[in-house]
Amino acid sequence: MAPVPARPVAAIILAAGKGTRMKSDLHKVLHPLGGRPMLMHLLASLTALAPERQVVVVGDKAEQLRAALTGSDVQLAVQEPQLGTGHAVLQAEAALAGFDGVALILFGDVPLVSGATMARLVQAVADGAEIAVLGFRPAVPGAYGRVIADADGRIRKMVEAKDATPEELAVPLCNAGLMAVDSARLFGLLKQVGNANAAGEYYLPDIVMLATAAGGDCRVLEAPPGEVLGVNSRGELAEAEALFQQRRRADLMAAGVTLTAPETVFLSFDTLIGRDTLVEPNVVFAPGVEVAAGATIRAFSHLEGARVATGCEVGPYARLRPGTVLETGAKVGNFVETKKAVLGPGAKANHLSYLGDATVGAKANIGAGTITCNYDGFGKYQTVIGEGAFIGSNSALVAPVTIGDGAIVGAGSTLTQDVAADALALVRPPQVSKAGWAARFRAAALARKGK
Amino acid sequence: MAPVPARPVAAIILAAGKGTRMKSDLHKVLHPLGGRPMLMHLLASLTALAPERQVVVVGDKAEQLRAALTGSDVQLAVQEPQLGTGHAVLQAEAALAGFDGVALILFGDVPLVSGATMARLVQAVADGAEIAVLGFRPAVPGAYGRVIADADGRIRKMVEAKDATPEELAVPLCNAGLMAVDSARLFGLLKQVGNANAAGEYYLPDIVMLATAAGGDCRVLEAPPGEVLGVNSRGELAEAEALFQQRRRADLMAAGVTLTAPETVFLSFDTLIGRDTLVEPNVVFAPGVEVAAGATIRAFSHLEGARVATGCEVGPYARLRPGTVLETGAKVGNFVETKKAVLGPGAKANHLSYLGDATVGAKANIGAGTITCNYDGFGKYQTVIGEGAFIGSNSALVAPVTIGDGAIVGAGSTLTQDVAADALALVRPPQVSKAGWAARFRAAALARKGK
Amino acid sequence: MAPVPARPVAAIILAAGKGTRMKSDLHKVLHPLGGRPMLMHLLASLTALAPERQVVVVGDKAEQLRAALTGSDVQLAVQEPQLGTGHAVLQAEAALAGFDGVALILFGDVPLVSGATMARLVQAVADGAEIAVLGFRPAVPGAYGRVIADADGRIRKMVEAKDATPEELAVPLCNAGLMAVDSARLFGLLKQVGNANAAGEYYLPDIVMLATAAGGDCRVLEAPPGEVLGVNSRGELAEAEALFQQRRRADLMAAGVTLTAPETVFLSFDTLIGRDTLVEPNVVFAPGVEVAAGATIRAFSHLEGARVATGCEVGPYARLRPGTVLETGAKVGNFVETKKAVLGPGAKANHLSYLGDATVGAKANIGAGTITCNYDGFGKYQTVIGEGAFIGSNSALVAPVTIGDGAIVGAGSTLTQDVAADALALVRPPQVSKAGWAARFRAAALARKGK
Repeated sequence: MAPVPARPVAAIILAAGKGTRMKSDLHKVLHPLGGRPMLMHLLASLTALAPERQVVVVGDKAEQLRAALTGSDVQLAVQEPQLGTGHAVLQAEAALAGFDGVALILFGDVPLVSGATMARLVQAVADGAEIAVLGFRPAVPGAYGRVIADADGRIRKMVEAKDATPEELAVPLCNAGLMAVDSARLFGLLKQVGNANAAGEYYLPDIVMLATAAGGDCRVLEAPPGEVLGVNSRGELAEAEALFQQRRRADLMAAGVTLTAPETVFLSFDTLIGRDTLVEPNVVFAPGVEVAAGATIRAFSHLEGARVATGCEVGPYARLRPGTVLETGAKVGNFVETKKAVLGPGAKANHLSYLGDATVGAKANIGAGTITCNYDGFGKYQTVIGEGAFIGSNSALVAPVTIGDGAIVGAGSTLTQDVAADALALVRPPQVSKAGWAARFRAAALARKGK
Repeated sequence: MAPVPARPVAAIILAAGKGTRMKSDLHKVLHPLGGRPMLMHLLASLTALAPERQVVVVGDKAEQLRAALTGSDVQLAVQEPQLGTGHAVLQAEAALAGFDGVALILFGDVPLVSGATMARLVQAVADGAEIAVLGFRPAVPGAYGRVIADADGRIRKMVEAKDATPEELAVPLCNAGLMAVDSARLFGLLKQVGNANAAGEYYLPDIVMLATAAGGDCRVLEAPPGEVLGVNSRGELAEAEALFQQRRRADLMAAGVTLTAPETVFLSFDTLIGRDTLVEPNVVFAPGVEVAAGATIRAFSHLEGARVATGCEVGPYARLRPGTVLETGAKVGNFVETKKAVLGPGAKANHLSYLGDATVGAKANIGAGTITCNYDGFGKYQTVIGEGAFIGSNSALVAPVTIGDGAIVGAGSTLTQDVAADALALVRPPQVSKAGWAARFRAAALARKGK
Repeated sequence: MAPVPARPVAAIILAAGKGTRMKSDLHKVLHPLGGRPMLMHLLASLTALAPERQVVVVGDKAEQLRAALTGSDVQLAVQEPQLGTGHAVLQAEAALAGFDGVALILFGDVPLVSGATMARLVQAVADGAEIAVLGFRPAVPGAYGRVIADADGRIRKMVEAKDATPEELAVPLCNAGLMAVDSARLFGLLKQVGNANAAGEYYLPDIVMLATAAGGDCRVLEAPPGEVLGVNSRGELAEAEALFQQRRRADLMAAGVTLTAPETVFLSFDTLIGRDTLVEPNVVFAPGVEVAAGATIRAFSHLEGARVATGCEVGPYARLRPGTVLETGAKVGNFVETKKAVLGPGAKANHLSYLGDATVGAKANIGAGTITCNYDGFGKYQTVIGEGAFIGSNSALVAPVTIGDGAIVGAGSTLTQDVAADALALVRPPQVSKAGWAARFRAAALARKGK
């Protein structure tokens, strides 16, 4: 983790673009990446810098951002009308009143910038630069603005591709847009920016040339590859997701987790998996999952909001929903769904079951096809299964109900009353046989079909 | 969509190759791509050109093509023996008797050519060219025949790689095989083609040099990348499938669909998905699926022949089979299979159920483990569940059966009679308990094991 | 398969590295690849050479290797302390006492070397070389040692990258580490190797320069790409797995198997699949699976230790566990698990079932939600279902139990007694209806909620 910079930090996150190419009713920066909105990735990375203030500049769909940020200390500044990135940052002036430090300007649709990169930008200003610009080297520089800088990173010129000379176009270092600016200088510079261009917009990068012209020390820092991917379409969102996944998978493997086919395992921002745990192909980790060391997550499993202890085996085809806790050595097998269910050490639910609002004791065995009937259309009720209990297959446990330690429930039972420890509970009407009935039925059916 | 060309079109699709490298009993052009046979992709793309005639030239396994084309207006011409591509086209002469327009020659194993590309070829002939050849620029030109043309596309020479000079080999433009030919010239030219080559075959591309030598205007048009991939092996079939999938995924994302991990979503030729619908990783859309805007298709789901309305949530692990209709806000959850099942607005079947030949009313709740018993070994029968009905878990509904609006079915019931609206139906024998039985059973079992 | 070389072979497999970067409690060479430990891949490839002796040189975690090799004729030689690769090979001297032939030196963490490549190395020594070294051409030669050789493969120099001249660094051929050595010379050369280097280690490659200096004929052979990938981390393990999978998929496609999306199909070292079988996306073949020609394995299926005959359809979402045998035309559908289950020709289990320790007769139909209750907490018991039997949905068959040929079991039955052929068996208590009960229940529930 990067050290907290020497000067106070205020983050300004631009999120006022219309996001037209997303073709979405959802605000662009609220589209999720690794299980949480893009904007939240930036806010999470910012925590490493302990920012004094955080301002999101918003245009359309402001109410969606307001709702998403309820309860946080992030301020909203509304840009209306939207007259360019320079104009957007200017809307944060009131929110930064009285702030003295480094203003860090981020983009809500550039979500993968790391806290370390943010800290490097801020540190450059804390070390004396007036502005620190984030540069990057795209495979095809094309239409990106170029950053012309000395070998030590001091910027001599920033130029739009369309205005660049052939020599300038040959420069591979481009402007990623993000920058840190001395807060004492930021708004003064912005007010000098003009809009004499085809779009009639006020462009943020112009402050760099204004500062440089005034003798200011502006620096460019280089971003690690992949951190400055901008998301303007669903295609780019998928690319960002792929980058995010790639990194998280690599992190887990480096920490000693086996991913048989990493490209088929999908992780969330907060997925934790311990060393020597095996994750087979095609596993989805939705948010809130913690898997201890030495567990096995088999193919086609889906985990969300679940804790899995060492020695557990999950899947294939297990679905662990929020509130699931598997204690040491517990097993949840194929076509089994759990929700708010705690399985004690060594407990097993191996086949075709639904365990919701349930507590299962250590070493209890849940037969195939067992269902906890936890819902009556209005409320949810608890099922408690004791240690070492044996629930016969195809049983329905109508909650609230308690099965005592060591009890046995006969197969096919629908239980509505508690079962005492060590007792056998049965709901087993007599089996009736009608000799020859099947043969007659078939003959009649075939006759009807005219065969 | 491309405009219909100014002259009538007759399509000749060559499909007489033996397809040996496929190692298959199925005719090569019937191998599926995106859920339908390769040949059908070509016929579908051709509809944009409103062709007057369509002829498939076939050799081996002609009966498979005959069966596949039953009911269509596509003619079959049999090539026997198979003496080369020129000879193959010649077999279509009778089928084109009296036709005056543009003959478009396609290859059954080059299935991804778009209607737009076909139209460009035809238009070039309608505009006065005698022959319009489709060229492409492979990454490694290698053994492909080169097309030597003027800057405006007029062909000066077509040459096999083995006969080419080093200068000719350096030409990156290769012959894809497809061409459009003035029908008044086609068969005359073909009859001039000789077979004085190692294989003793009549080669279609030879007509280009014959026409050029006679002063004809032959043109080359360039194919968009990926359209002329030929399928000669299962490996190439998989490549074509991958290309097809890539395009369909990109189309959907451009239209505002979120694919979290596009490379794990498999689409069919006719898959329709609305804007702001989320498709999680690992979803298969078999043919016949239409998903409205604003729905959620969760991981590991499989849909086929299903309509899903806005606000619906499907999966994870849902299998929607043909005839499934989910109305607004309906939910089909994990390990649930539906077939010929209509779920009304807000109806839910969240866990481990089979709904076949069923109608489920608005807001009805289908408990975990519910099964509609729709088959008796001979016929299929309907289950009708009323609005707001509540089906307790682990119930079996023996069709034909009707559950009235607002009725409740107790958990674990096997229903064979209709249930009135607002009634409770139960099949619930008394629960029996045998105190201490389980403890005795265990003791005896352990004793038998000698423990 | 490569011909067995003309001289006897002794394999020395080095496996004494600490494997620190794996961060694992499991010995590195025991990490699985395609369903079996890396080390076993090498031993399997060696069988083509019919080696007289096989020695694994081990350091840490020797007991894990000892356990893994129990019952084999592979010897273990312990290297303690670990003083380099040359020192490691020297530990095999005792195990090779009296052996006269070619010593083939392999690395336990370079698992993908083929038997053919091994045979080429050995043959070069059998043909007169003193040492045959395996070379390869990495994309980025970087820090690999270079092999400087004549056009005919005779080695002039082997040099570490750090000691190489610029001309030597420009040589693309690198040392993969593996080699074959005349056993009469091996240990003599090793004893001449010094450890005057920064690490104080004895390096195996030094024997090549020693032999060359003494006038020996040392040769370099080139490895096919991908065979010499070394596994030092979980990331490289995943890369090796990906390479392994790529090859196996390509082999199957070349043999006439359709893999719709090959990159989503995971195979084991021993997976067998017949021609014209279709494998849809997202299928996992764990070890021990044999699928005949002309079967269909649908999406999201998981097979392990199973035999599937021609005409069978498996999945989607089928889980076949060890001991499953599907005879001609049998079908196992969605959310169905089978274990030690034999399904006769044309038998069907299409939905949500568990069949364990079961025999199902030809054309029998297993209804949705059927469960064989094969386990009572202590032992496993058999279920036998006769030909043409029809098991109604949601039935529980409490084993041991036999259902006769042509018998019918009513839906929702829990069967504990055998059913005669052609009989109908029912466990069906009367259905009870309480008019208006549901309406009153709802009213009361809503009242409690204060609505």
